[in-house]
Amino acid sequence: MNNKGISRYVIKRLPRYYRFLGDLSAAGIKRISSGELAKKMGVTASQIRQDLNCFGGFGQQGYGYNTDLLREEIGAILGVDSPKKIILIGMGNLGRAVALHLNFEEKGFNLIGLFDKKESLIGNVVRNIPVRNIASLDDFCRENRPEAAILCIPKESVPQVAEHLINLGVKGFLNFSHYDLAVKYEGIQVENVHFGDSLMRLSYSLKNN
Amino acid sequence: MNNKGISRYVIKRLPRYYRFLGDLSAAGIKRISSGELAKKMGVTASQIRQDLNCFGGFGQQGYGYNTDLLREEIGAILGVDSPKKIILIGMGNLGRAVALHLNFEEKGFNLIGLFDKKESLIGNVVRNIPVRNIASLDDFCRENRPEAAILCIPKESVPQVAEHLINLGVKGFLNFSHYDLAVKYEGIQVENVHFGDSLMRLSYSLKNN
Repeated sequence: MNNKGISRYVIKRLPRYYRFLGDLSAAGIKRISSGELAKKMGVTASQIRQDLNCFGGFGQQGYGYNTDLLREEIGAILGVDSPKKIILIGMGNLGRAVALHLNFEEKGFNLIGLFDKKESLIGNVVRNIPVRNIASLDDFCRENRPEAAILCIPKESVPQVAEHLINLGVKGFLNFSHYDLAVKYEGIQVENVHFGDSLMRLSYSLKNN
Repeated sequence: MNNKGISRYVIKRLPRYYRFLGDLSAAGIKRISSGELAKKMGVTASQIRQDLNCFGGFGQQGYGYNTDLLREEIGAILGVDSPKKIILIGMGNLGRAVALHLNFEEKGFNLIGLFDKKESLIGNVVRNIPVRNIASLDDFCRENRPEAAILCIPKESVPQVAEHLINLGVKGFLNFSHYDLAVKYEGIQVENVHFGDSLMRLSYSLKNN
């Protein structure tokens, strides 16, 4: 399937479709109209039809969408059916919570390594994975070739750690630090997660609504 | 200042401007051109000028933006200068990490209460705030009138807990559970934070770039 030229706004919404369709599948709902799906998701039916038509459209007029099939197709577009190796750097409170909270296998990744520099954390086992000394990162990456890394480290450390990981072959980052990684590294894929930005948007909404 | 009619895409970007301007201020940089700011943020100068013109425009031709002043103005638009009371429900790994990680005061909130139902967590002190029994939530809310709540609870519990909080006067949510809260509650402000969606977007980018 050719996904080039799909607006990034549509791509941004796909994970949400994927989640909702998963819930529908789990509830045994085999097909759904764009109108019903729209109602559940709080968007318009026309948006759903437009978004899904980008991919050739999976629905049939008068029948609606086959939930399992549509979910599978969106999953394939997102690449969740091909697990990529990922490591996590920074096993403080946030790193630990992220490691425990995310269902990596369902989202297209295989968590293969955890790293920290803090003596007291090294050797802890989270999700059956031992926390390794950051000093062993180079050897680990050369041997295991992770494609992506999750950063749960302080802002100050991000530029240096990211550059180091890029040199070790890491191509993508899920970045939880207060630092926007995308800017300096062209060709490297970054998803920045800024809780603080969400909190400020909530502040705005509370003030203005 | 009249913020009505500003596109939600611009609003979505404001926290990022606020962060970057904060970094500039902290580095002692008193003024910056839209071109320089654009370069730092990895966007176009024209986007910056368009975004900031929505608010009447703070820059002067040939001078650029006064970083402190612009940051202050954006902060005022976001409402970070008027602290709103917020509570956090669910003090497991994720809730604890969120409580510790977020700088509430800088983002327009004052964290006043932590709640869980798990005996082993109740009484723990995080950020000088004791974790309270969820059974005391009603009394606490009637007395302290929190305007917002952070949800770090399992998906299944969200609908019931959210409705309960809405009945207690809570108007906004920062929701970390795998559940999209906005749909059912009109007039209530919600920011959903879905790490898993970010991970799937990263999966897509790695596959397609």
